[in-house]
Amino acid sequence: MDKKLFMVSLGPGDIDLVTIKALKALKSCDAICVPTKSEDRSFKKSLTHKIVSALMNEHNFNKPLIPIYTPMQYNKEDWQYQVDCIYDGFKTYDTLSFVTLGDSAIYSTIYYLLDIIKVQNPSLYAVTEVIAGVTSFSQASAKVKKPLCVGESALEIIPLPKRDLPKTKVYMRPKIGMDTESIKEEGEMYTFENLNFKDESIVPQKKEVVSKYMTLFIDFFK
Amino acid sequence: MDKKLFMVSLGPGDIDLVTIKALKALKSCDAICVPTKSEDRSFKKSLTHKIVSALMNEHNFNKPLIPIYTPMQYNKEDWQYQVDCIYDGFKTYDTLSFVTLGDSAIYSTIYYLLDIIKVQNPSLYAVTEVIAGVTSFSQASAKVKKPLCVGESALEIIPLPKRDLPKTKVYMRPKIGMDTESIKEEGEMYTFENLNFKDESIVPQKKEVVSKYMTLFIDFFK
Repeated sequence: MDKKLFMVSLGPGDIDLVTIKALKALKSCDAICVPTKSEDRSFKKSLTHKIVSALMNEHNFNKPLIPIYTPMQYNKEDWQYQVDCIYDGFKTYDTLSFVTLGDSAIYSTIYYLLDIIKVQNPSLYAVTEVIAGVTSFSQASAKVKKPLCVGESALEIIPLPKRDLPKTKVYMRPKIGMDTESIKEEGEMYTFENLNFKDESIVPQKKEVVSKYMTLFIDFFK
Repeated sequence: MDKKLFMVSLGPGDIDLVTIKALKALKSCDAICVPTKSEDRSFKKSLTHKIVSALMNEHNFNKPLIPIYTPMQYNKEDWQYQVDCIYDGFKTYDTLSFVTLGDSAIYSTIYYLLDIIKVQNPSLYAVTEVIAGVTSFSQASAKVKKPLCVGESALEIIPLPKRDLPKTKVYMRPKIGMDTESIKEEGEMYTFENLNFKDESIVPQKKEVVSKYMTLFIDFFK
């Protein structure tokens, strides 16, 4: 039996800001894992549940929902418990979606779970697909019609309260022919070229010279 | 006649990573303004055109396309020319979409145009809706299954080549009851509470105390 896990970003709360890819995953999977902060595993106060329900309503589909109790503390045992709920779901279902608010890349629970799955169940990890979504700050920007960055300005995302923090750096808008000497490598560096287009290339290192218009360097925090 | 302009973020190039909201805007508008880098206004090399065509194909709709010549130089006259193309479109059509790759908040052309429209045509500006999208770096993160930030890490988006830059700061994950004294105000500060949910509140200032779980402070660069 082919198991498959989708980590689905739901975006910033507006069901129309869900991507078509996320919607397809939710429609095609056998059951949806929905986080709840209620210890009795009810969905009374779950924002995520509200979005998933509204989506099923608007797009005429219905899936079994698996409640995943998600306390606000950051305990390894809590992540393990959530991973166990997923494993448990796979006893009944072949394809599961696990939904997360906003975008998976930005302060999402899913990477605590994926870190565990990667070690305990590498074959499940390998077939797990992460589906990116709209971030809350992109939507905030759209609402007030103000850019977060434009031209020669930068953007920083900081968790509160602020301390001395490891930081991912995304380097955008390079020019073709530019050498990359000025980019300091501090964490784990990747070069993304032509993302999602023909000749897409993703390499886990810094390219020495920019050769494509669509190039992104990401130095992931360590 | 009610004119309406949608600034539509297309996301990072995968047509499934377009949001439902973007798709609805494209389906409902009378014509779509599509940037092209070709001086002859052809779409031969336009990535944006590729995405829009593929979307129309996959979702069975067809709209007149208005080519918007978009040179890579950052000249005020070029932006004005593009705005004039939009005005021109409104002579024939009531509702226009203007599409942009990635997310409107991150290094998008649209804010050069909106700055002009805001001054020249405040009533059009007022009814213009910006539709947020998935950023290229969110998708890059999903592809390699590595978070951009998690827990106590931060994220910085930097245009290349790097100089001394004005910077927007997004403060996330505050705790209820926290006072906001530690957040320095450098640009234009907004507080977003319960974005897209019941009791959404957007105020152009820093709230002194965090009272909602879903609070975002954005200090926009000046």
